[in-house]
Parts: sequence; structure tokens; C-alpha cells
Amino acid sequence: MAEYNVAPLLNLIDQFNRLPGIGRKTAQRLAYFVLKMPKDEAEKFSNAILDARNKIRYCKVCHNLTDEELCPVCRNSSRDKSIICVVEDPRDVMALERTGEFNATYHVLNGVISPLNGIGPDQLSIKELLDRINKSKVEEVIMATNPTVEGEATAMYISKLIKPLGVKVTRLAYGIPVGGDLEYADEVTLSRALAGRGEI
Amino acid sequence: MAEYNVAPLLNLIDQFNRLPGIGRKTAQRLAYFVLKMPKDEAEKFSNAILDARNKIRYCKVCHNLTDEELCPVCRNSSRDKSIICVVEDPRDVMALERTGEFNATYHVLNGVISPLNGIGPDQLSIKELLDRINKSKVEEVIMATNPTVEGEATAMYISKLIKPLGVKVTRLAYGIPVGGDLEYADEVTLSRALAGRGEI
Repeated sequence: MAEYNVAPLLNLIDQFNRLPGIGRKTAQRLAYFVLKMPKDEAEKFSNAILDARNKIRYCKVCHNLTDEELCPVCRNSSRDKSIICVVEDPRDVMALERTGEFNATYHVLNGVISPLNGIGPDQLSIKELLDRINKSKVEEVIMATNPTVEGEATAMYISKLIKPLGVKVTRLAYGIPVGGDLEYADEVTLSRALAGRGEI
Repeated sequence: MAEYNVAPLLNLIDQFNRLPGIGRKTAQRLAYFVLKMPKDEAEKFSNAILDARNKIRYCKVCHNLTDEELCPVCRNSSRDKSIICVVEDPRDVMALERTGEFNATYHVLNGVISPLNGIGPDQLSIKELLDRINKSKVEEVIMATNPTVEGEATAMYISKLIKPLGVKVTRLAYGIPVGGDLEYADEVTLSRALAGRGEI
């Protein structure tokens, strides 16, 4: 490769290669695709990166991503501010919003407690959640962290802090996923589904 | 999603989603990665796209990608200009350069003849290859198009045009790939390997 060195091309391949899950071959393919893009499309792509990086910040209330002071959910006066759904990640907000069933507010932790990765409670927006509960009339906090060991531990930790404040704390239901197959469900999920069975 | 609409973020996800092989989920993952990049890294990425798109063009001689008038191979005076290796794609040049065994020049067709996709000989740099052979002392043309139906057809088509010019035309050897397994080799490859066997 010493011989064939077209700097701007190699540089673009390197840049793509740094993205998570993008190997050298894929990076090459993407770089060649960019070379064949119309000029204005390449400019749009380039600007989208700068724009997103420079304009997006955390919502002052719920720590979700936003391009204004408050995120669209917190800005919306028709949202029920007395219920807070606690999630790990902004992507979880997107997933919940897609259901179209939730009309209250969120609180984004931006991580989970994970001693192995050196992430303790102080690095998450837990203090801000407690402040929020203390300052406004919150009736229910729904713990919607992921059903993983770390997600569960984080949910337990936070619920222990919140309960003394006299707020109802709930957790998303466990059970078999809709469209799933009992045969392939793991034992823990199945026994939770059994334990949580309801009358029909 | 109507509710939760952070324009710069959705825009960046859309842009990643347009790249080949990048689905919605991967595009989301990449966009979030960009948001967490240091500012100067995001700027470098953004500039790399513009830079590559705006600076890279085709080499005047061999139609490979370059950021100057001639590509690094054509600029290099120690390269043997009497042998031309014809390839489909700039990536093939990279692959051949990586062997470190080839010290002559290339000609990049930038495609293959493919009637189904509406690509005829006129859309490839075949005329330029013939001009090159006519103008300079070329002794051998190595057809290194891919061993696919279209690559073979293109190699045949070009070799028929070149042979009358009194130039030796060769084709890359077919055979079993090094490190491969006979058991998994297809019949055509195996019979080619048999036919092309050499004394040891």
C-alpha cells in the first residue's frame, strides 16, 4: 500500500473504520459510495455530522437528547408531568415513543450502574431525577431500564432512593414477547410470565 | 415518532441510513456514536467526506482514483509502463498493490460490460485503453477482471480488440485459492485447476 497512496481516500476509509461495527472492507465500500455521491449529497452528509455534533445537547429536565433547551417531550404541555419513565438511553425513549401509548415524561440516565466498567451512580443523572421528584408533583416513577443484570441493579438502586419520598415506583412487566415462541423462550422469562399471569 | 423529533439527530440517522448496507438500527448506532465523539473528531470526519468527494478524480492515464493529475502508480517512473493490468475497480488495484509483486501499471475500467444493468462498452474506459496501447510501447496486457460471467465476457471483448494491435494478452491464472479446501472448491474451479496443473 506504500505505493498507492491517495491521502483523501485513505483518510475517509480510516474515518469510517473508526465507527463501531464498521470493519476495513465495509469502510472501503462506504468511502467509494461517498466518492460516487452527487456533490450536494456529500455536502449534506458532511453537514449533518457537524450539525448533529454541535447542536445536540441534553434536555435540562429529563437529560434526553435535544436541539433546544428542553426536549420535545418536556416542551409539550399536554404531557402528563406527574409520571416519569426512567430509561437508560435516548434510544429507549424513541422505542417507547413509537408505541404511541405513553403520554407522560421520561428521565434518561444515560447509562447504567456498572462497576466493571467503572460507572457508578454519580455518573448517571440520578441526582437530577431525585431533584425533579422533590421539586414537582410526581406520583409515579416507572423503572424502564433494560431487563439485564445491570439494568435490574440500577432499577433496584434508584427505587430504594425514591420510595422514601412517598412516590409509587413500578417496573415494566416481564413475560413472553408478543409474536415469540414458547419453545424458544428462556426459563427465567417463562417463569416470570407464569408468575405474572392474568385472568382473561 | 411525531412527538419526539430532534431534527439534527434524525437527519444524521437518515444520512447514515442511505449508505449501502446500513440499516435503520445501525444508522442509529452510528449517529449516537458521532454525538459522543470529541468535537474535533467529528469535524475531521465531516471534512474527510468533503475532502474525498471534492479532491478525488480519475487519473488521466489509467482512470484509477487519484487526488492529482496522475495516480501514484502512473507518476512513479520506476514502474514498467510496457505492461498494463486491466481491472474492473479501483479496489482491485489496492488488492494487487497489497501483494507487492506487481511493478507495472494498471488500467481501471470502472465497471464491467453488463447488458442487464444497461452498461455497454462505451461506458467503460475501453477506448482510452486502446488509445494508450496505440500511443505508447505496450508489450503485454493482463486481463484481471473478476472471474464472473460479466468479468469474463468483458475480458474476452477487450482481448478481441487488443490482439489485432500485436500486443500479448494474458489472463490471471485460475485454480484453487491458497489455504482453501479441495472439498469445498466448486467443480468449475477444480477442473480449471486440473487443466492448468504445472510440474513441481
